[in-house]
Amino acid sequence: MTSSQDTRPAYGVHSEVGRLRKVLVCAPGLAHRRLTPTNSDDLLFDDVMWVENAQRDHADFVNKLRERDVEVVELHDLLAQTMAVPGARDWLLDRKIVANEVGLGLVEQTRAYLETLEPERLAKYLIGGLATTDLPEDFRSGYLDLARESTGVREYLMPPLPNTLYTRDTTCWLYGGLTLNPLYWPARHDETLLMKAVYSFHPDYVGSTVWWGDPELDWGQATFEGGDIMPVGNGVVLMGMSERTSRQAITQVAAALFKNGAAEHVIVAGMPKLRSAMHLDTVFTFADRDLVTLYPTIMDGVHTFSLRPGDKAPGIELIDEGSTPFVDVVAKALGLPGLRVVETGGDVYASERQQWDSGNNAVALEPGVVFTYDRNTQTNTLLRKAGIEVITIVGAELGRGRGGGHCMTCPIVRDPVEF
Amino acid sequence: MTSSQDTRPAYGVHSEVGRLRKVLVCAPGLAHRRLTPTNSDDLLFDDVMWVENAQRDHADFVNKLRERDVEVVELHDLLAQTMAVPGARDWLLDRKIVANEVGLGLVEQTRAYLETLEPERLAKYLIGGLATTDLPEDFRSGYLDLARESTGVREYLMPPLPNTLYTRDTTCWLYGGLTLNPLYWPARHDETLLMKAVYSFHPDYVGSTVWWGDPELDWGQATFEGGDIMPVGNGVVLMGMSERTSRQAITQVAAALFKNGAAEHVIVAGMPKLRSAMHLDTVFTFADRDLVTLYPTIMDGVHTFSLRPGDKAPGIELIDEGSTPFVDVVAKALGLPGLRVVETGGDVYASERQQWDSGNNAVALEPGVVFTYDRNTQTNTLLRKAGIEVITIVGAELGRGRGGGHCMTCPIVRDPVEF
Amino acid sequence: MTSSQDTRPAYGVHSEVGRLRKVLVCAPGLAHRRLTPTNSDDLLFDDVMWVENAQRDHADFVNKLRERDVEVVELHDLLAQTMAVPGARDWLLDRKIVANEVGLGLVEQTRAYLETLEPERLAKYLIGGLATTDLPEDFRSGYLDLARESTGVREYLMPPLPNTLYTRDTTCWLYGGLTLNPLYWPARHDETLLMKAVYSFHPDYVGSTVWWGDPELDWGQATFEGGDIMPVGNGVVLMGMSERTSRQAITQVAAALFKNGAAEHVIVAGMPKLRSAMHLDTVFTFADRDLVTLYPTIMDGVHTFSLRPGDKAPGIELIDEGSTPFVDVVAKALGLPGLRVVETGGDVYASERQQWDSGNNAVALEPGVVFTYDRNTQTNTLLRKAGIEVITIVGAELGRGRGGGHCMTCPIVRDPVEF
Amino acid sequence: MTSSQDTRPAYGVHSEVGRLRKVLVCAPGLAHRRLTPTNSDDLLFDDVMWVENAQRDHADFVNKLRERDVEVVELHDLLAQTMAVPGARDWLLDRKIVANEVGLGLVEQTRAYLETLEPERLAKYLIGGLATTDLPEDFRSGYLDLARESTGVREYLMPPLPNTLYTRDTTCWLYGGLTLNPLYWPARHDETLLMKAVYSFHPDYVGSTVWWGDPELDWGQATFEGGDIMPVGNGVVLMGMSERTSRQAITQVAAALFKNGAAEHVIVAGMPKLRSAMHLDTVFTFADRDLVTLYPTIMDGVHTFSLRPGDKAPGIELIDEGSTPFVDVVAKALGLPGLRVVETGGDVYASERQQWDSGNNAVALEPGVVFTYDRNTQTNTLLRKAGIEVITIVGAELGRGRGGGHCMTCPIVRDPVEF
Repeated sequence: MTSSQDTRPAYGVHSEVGRLRKVLVCAPGLAHRRLTPTNSDDLLFDDVMWVENAQRDHADFVNKLRERDVEVVELHDLLAQTMAVPGARDWLLDRKIVANEVGLGLVEQTRAYLETLEPERLAKYLIGGLATTDLPEDFRSGYLDLARESTGVREYLMPPLPNTLYTRDTTCWLYGGLTLNPLYWPARHDETLLMKAVYSFHPDYVGSTVWWGDPELDWGQATFEGGDIMPVGNGVVLMGMSERTSRQAITQVAAALFKNGAAEHVIVAGMPKLRSAMHLDTVFTFADRDLVTLYPTIMDGVHTFSLRPGDKAPGIELIDEGSTPFVDVVAKALGLPGLRVVETGGDVYASERQQWDSGNNAVALEPGVVFTYDRNTQTNTLLRKAGIEVITIVGAELGRGRGGGHCMTCPIVRDPVEF
Repeated sequence: MTSSQDTRPAYGVHSEVGRLRKVLVCAPGLAHRRLTPTNSDDLLFDDVMWVENAQRDHADFVNKLRERDVEVVELHDLLAQTMAVPGARDWLLDRKIVANEVGLGLVEQTRAYLETLEPERLAKYLIGGLATTDLPEDFRSGYLDLARESTGVREYLMPPLPNTLYTRDTTCWLYGGLTLNPLYWPARHDETLLMKAVYSFHPDYVGSTVWWGDPELDWGQATFEGGDIMPVGNGVVLMGMSERTSRQAITQVAAALFKNGAAEHVIVAGMPKLRSAMHLDTVFTFADRDLVTLYPTIMDGVHTFSLRPGDKAPGIELIDEGSTPFVDVVAKALGLPGLRVVETGGDVYASERQQWDSGNNAVALEPGVVFTYDRNTQTNTLLRKAGIEVITIVGAELGRGRGGGHCMTCPIVRDPVEF
Repeated sequence: MTSSQDTRPAYGVHSEVGRLRKVLVCAPGLAHRRLTPTNSDDLLFDDVMWVENAQRDHADFVNKLRERDVEVVELHDLLAQTMAVPGARDWLLDRKIVANEVGLGLVEQTRAYLETLEPERLAKYLIGGLATTDLPEDFRSGYLDLARESTGVREYLMPPLPNTLYTRDTTCWLYGGLTLNPLYWPARHDETLLMKAVYSFHPDYVGSTVWWGDPELDWGQATFEGGDIMPVGNGVVLMGMSERTSRQAITQVAAALFKNGAAEHVIVAGMPKLRSAMHLDTVFTFADRDLVTLYPTIMDGVHTFSLRPGDKAPGIELIDEGSTPFVDVVAKALGLPGLRVVETGGDVYASERQQWDSGNNAVALEPGVVFTYDRNTQTNTLLRKAGIEVITIVGAELGRGRGGGHCMTCPIVRDPVEF
Repeated sequence: MTSSQDTRPAYGVHSEVGRLRKVLVCAPGLAHRRLTPTNSDDLLFDDVMWVENAQRDHADFVNKLRERDVEVVELHDLLAQTMAVPGARDWLLDRKIVANEVGLGLVEQTRAYLETLEPERLAKYLIGGLATTDLPEDFRSGYLDLARESTGVREYLMPPLPNTLYTRDTTCWLYGGLTLNPLYWPARHDETLLMKAVYSFHPDYVGSTVWWGDPELDWGQATFEGGDIMPVGNGVVLMGMSERTSRQAITQVAAALFKNGAAEHVIVAGMPKLRSAMHLDTVFTFADRDLVTLYPTIMDGVHTFSLRPGDKAPGIELIDEGSTPFVDVVAKALGLPGLRVVETGGDVYASERQQWDSGNNAVALEPGVVFTYDRNTQTNTLLRKAGIEVITIVGAELGRGRGGGHCMTCPIVRDPVEF
């Protein structure tokens, strides 16, 4: 994927708040129709959602982005386009429709059925999952009996991937290249395989530089999720070291960035292992070049490290920042005298509730302009009082997987900012 | 409470679907602002809610009821009116502001503070809870130190009662009298005490006939919740025997009804002990005189009993209905050839999700006209196809405590229907 | 209970480590045979136990106590003796065999059956529980059908009380009088009622002074468990303020002790709310007059308060001890220059495991001689190195309810120690 | 591994109850010293154990096996012998000490340290785990700071593998060859890698026939655990289809066995997905050629299928056995008129408790002679009454991971029986 010339504008994300030009999102759909109170835990959702309204609210978010001249790419569309590229369908189905996944005796017919589908419908099943009950009569074999459909057991030939909604996690553009992330939970691993298909076959993406990651390899403890990663500019990348993003991955990515000259400083936020601190961006995001919104209850417990290019193998030098607050380390790295901080709003009850409802999970359109959920009114008010333009999106359904605007967007082109 | 003449129209609920004339509801408020991800389990909520929107949606529900000529009584208002009645405030505070609840050394000043409040504000704290941090400086004593406010511990001098939202459970009008229910969870016990204050002091309610129940007594295993109870007419009462409504209570209430000639037949639905089958009305409600909506996955597992007046002590006769389906026992008791049944709509995923989202929790305005949540579109469509007028209310926030329109209403006056 | 002269030696517990002369224990039995993986959570046990071996190990503990001249009273025996006292059986059954507990229509026959029993067998059911299936054919009525025995539902006419094993919690002798404790979990409430029967009717106990508590009253938030309470001598009582022992109860008991001149100083250990810190005695006990064993991970987080007699109502004065360590406050109160401390032994894994296995839950026979579980070898070794004589009891089964020797003993007579 | 001649007696397991001649076990050790209440869930244990006593009880089990002329191989020993074979240590460390597992900057020094170790000590860490804190000062690098040891975070450079105690699951000898099983939980994956090292390098095992499985490949949904697998003889293999053993794996193994002529009939027990039914051998084992002990509550819910060699790809034919009980299908396949059945003993409480305590998890020494835990006295008595010789082992500690004698043994040589 790392070769080829083309005439399209260079992809790359050069800051957290510079002008957003192109972004990848994924609309709610079939995968979320599969969610029930019984299976939602396994699929990493806290609650079921009203899918039609989630779709409406997501479409509204997309419209607002487009009205503000952001090019929005939707994953179902992107995957359908990819599946129309010669060779791409074979490449992906060779990897997904195998005996280990669908079962012996079901490979040929499942593959045969998927071969009949239009790219759009195939993309729908790739993201939404293909239940054994979805196979048309003509493609059903006796081996399906083992799946015991009649007893209410629900098995999948391809798993539903409802967390594709959070495109932030799967791939990260870090300055001029990207990472194909090994995600923490097995239930999400196939998301990255879909993205590899895109970057391997889709004409708009072939030739992109990949710094690190390959979903066809086993990464062990080296897991990495985009919600923890922020290329803030000035050669700096912030990385939350959390339950989901490990030091094993962080050091590898840092080394790859340093080796390629893509960054000079990785600031690691060592986070407490709590559900409410799942990713760095659930407790800390940028709203302007020098303004962040954060949840102090968690951020006060962060221990900060710096990684710098080093002469000796493995090419990284580690500095323990000791008791210096994370925010101060970041400010200094950006050449700022300090960062303005907007804490989660409201009293002790409201701030805990708003953090939970993604109150600190803002995504910037440009410096000083962010999208957030409507429900976190107190934090939104504080951001506005600090001079930020806050555009709200409806979070009643979209928020039930515990992710906000930052989680639902994977920037592909974002301008740098001056520091 | 069981005496007194008055000129007000007789209260009483004579069916599940006859014209609704007067109903008690409780708007979301301070109690729900207290909910956080940390404490919601203890307070029996699955998730936190956006209180402002929950209030908006609840107000809309109330407006729709009023537009259709239902007299709607709101619990904060009712309690404020009650607190303005001489003697009522003393009666209630004598029972709530005691050393066992607020702690030694805090009784006098807490009471003193509450004495200063207008009835409306007192009602707000009675339902919403009074945290130690709510006490104004003038009323704080050194004994508050033991509550360790500074370390983030949150203690209450009066507990928040967010489940008042579900007025259905606390009291039940069964034909011409009511029950003051001993609720299952200790976190809800004080709800019934508030209602006893209303029925003991408020001029509109003094003199109501109480069949059974008194929140000042210890009822042990005899717990009883209105969500399980349906006075369907024709002298029949349905009672779900569930985790929350026990045989110890059911038989006592049946005996009291029989003794007073208030009913002739109690049909007991022995329910499986599952969260999704919390109350009978979460899986079974009436939408017309002969039409019910139900969730077959649970209702198929119900074992049915009948209780009838008996000559010998304790005055009830028990009949095991064996393998006869609950719906058939009910139809026969109502003198109907059968009940029309609308099952939860959609495929296996959607129906499980809709039951969870209170899809079967309809409340009738009159025969063939019901309120339900908007989100259960497939069940709503099936009801409409069956000729039911379905008026929707927004469930995005209100539904997060796992209760719908039936749970949120306590009918006080409802007409009989003909069978 | 607070009157009467008698010639028996005065009961009273005057220290934590003075010579133990008389103690109440409760052998494992029927209640533990009721435990299954399905119900153990409800009954507050982490795991099921091999009852025969638990009985063997408990008998060995009792033998070792008796060999060392401690008078050991066993609760089944004590209750059987009590049930043989005229009036006692009626008093207790009048309170337990009521419609609220057994159900209407079952009161008479259940009572009739229990009237037929010898005192020993009655005591067995009072502690072990009486399942509906235990009723002999002659005493079964049709109303039992509602209990749905055939479907595997298991209902009790009297609940099993497996936590009687931990006699420490239910009553506390504090110097010359006792408390009848309102326990935190409803599943344990009836334990205190059994003890009230004993203290009301058994000739050896009638006339004992009760400082506080009555299981026939509703204590609300004022819950109190003996595992948190230590009358250490010198007029001092230690009280853990925990999930189970509330400030509402602590202040009441302190006031009662001060008023009766029974104590002059209550030291409150404000504990973090964690399962591993259930009671003070799970992380802190005395092994000698000036030596304690403790788990630092928890004890380091304790905030300490002192309660002293006060002139003004409610008769107690509160002092916040601020950052002074609990151990230092205790030493000073005892007039000691300091306390010797033996921490839970082993590395970071072993010490966590040993605290969990009641490693710090020692009970003293006399100064410098304690009983502990055999399995906490590292902590036991450290105690021995500090000069303590450690007598071990087998904990493989007894420890599965998360309680050790201190939890399983309720001292009735214990000598003072000199400070 | 599938070639080579040698003179050692042919390995192979030809029944469930024929004379046991050689067996693999794994003694408790360092891995179990790592277990704490905090991490036991992640490591799939219900409770912590007293390691010394678990070792004593395991040694007693081994002694009893050896006294009865069984050759017992212990995994630590086997692995130490393997690590002494030239090339083996490199092969294994090349796969375990990689940046993805230990972290960049720590590979060289961790490897260097492990190179210094005697084979025995290396084996101890391979099974017991290597914590960052285990690295001696000379081998520590600054990159360890990221592991935040000082804050109590415990990270491993090699993970502890406490479930090696259950050697049954990791590999299965099925007649003359074996499977290297892909285990369900990621926490157990490395167990199979250790076994591959043994079968690739240890002179006693090199050349063994491997039917299926390779821990270096990704098996996706195709997970397979020996606790579900029983080569009962007569060309029949029983396979529990459970949470942990999937149809994706079962059909692959069946096809491999059929293709190699190693079996003619696989009987699949489709099990309910419950913790208590984790593996087939937790609810069903053989004690004699025609006698099984089983837990009816679970086994009554089993749906049975047969797999037979088929002419067409994939070489297996599936037969749904419909309502025929599993036991009857098995009897018929063995050419027996029926199987004698000993159900879990005791009343409803005791039988649930005994199944939980591995009461049905017997392992046979020879026809009619089995090992079980001592604690399941009622089931043991029933087995004895049926003529079985029952040899007991102490289960107080060993049973806390929910596995018994069958789980703790991996037969390598077992004779056939006559049917």
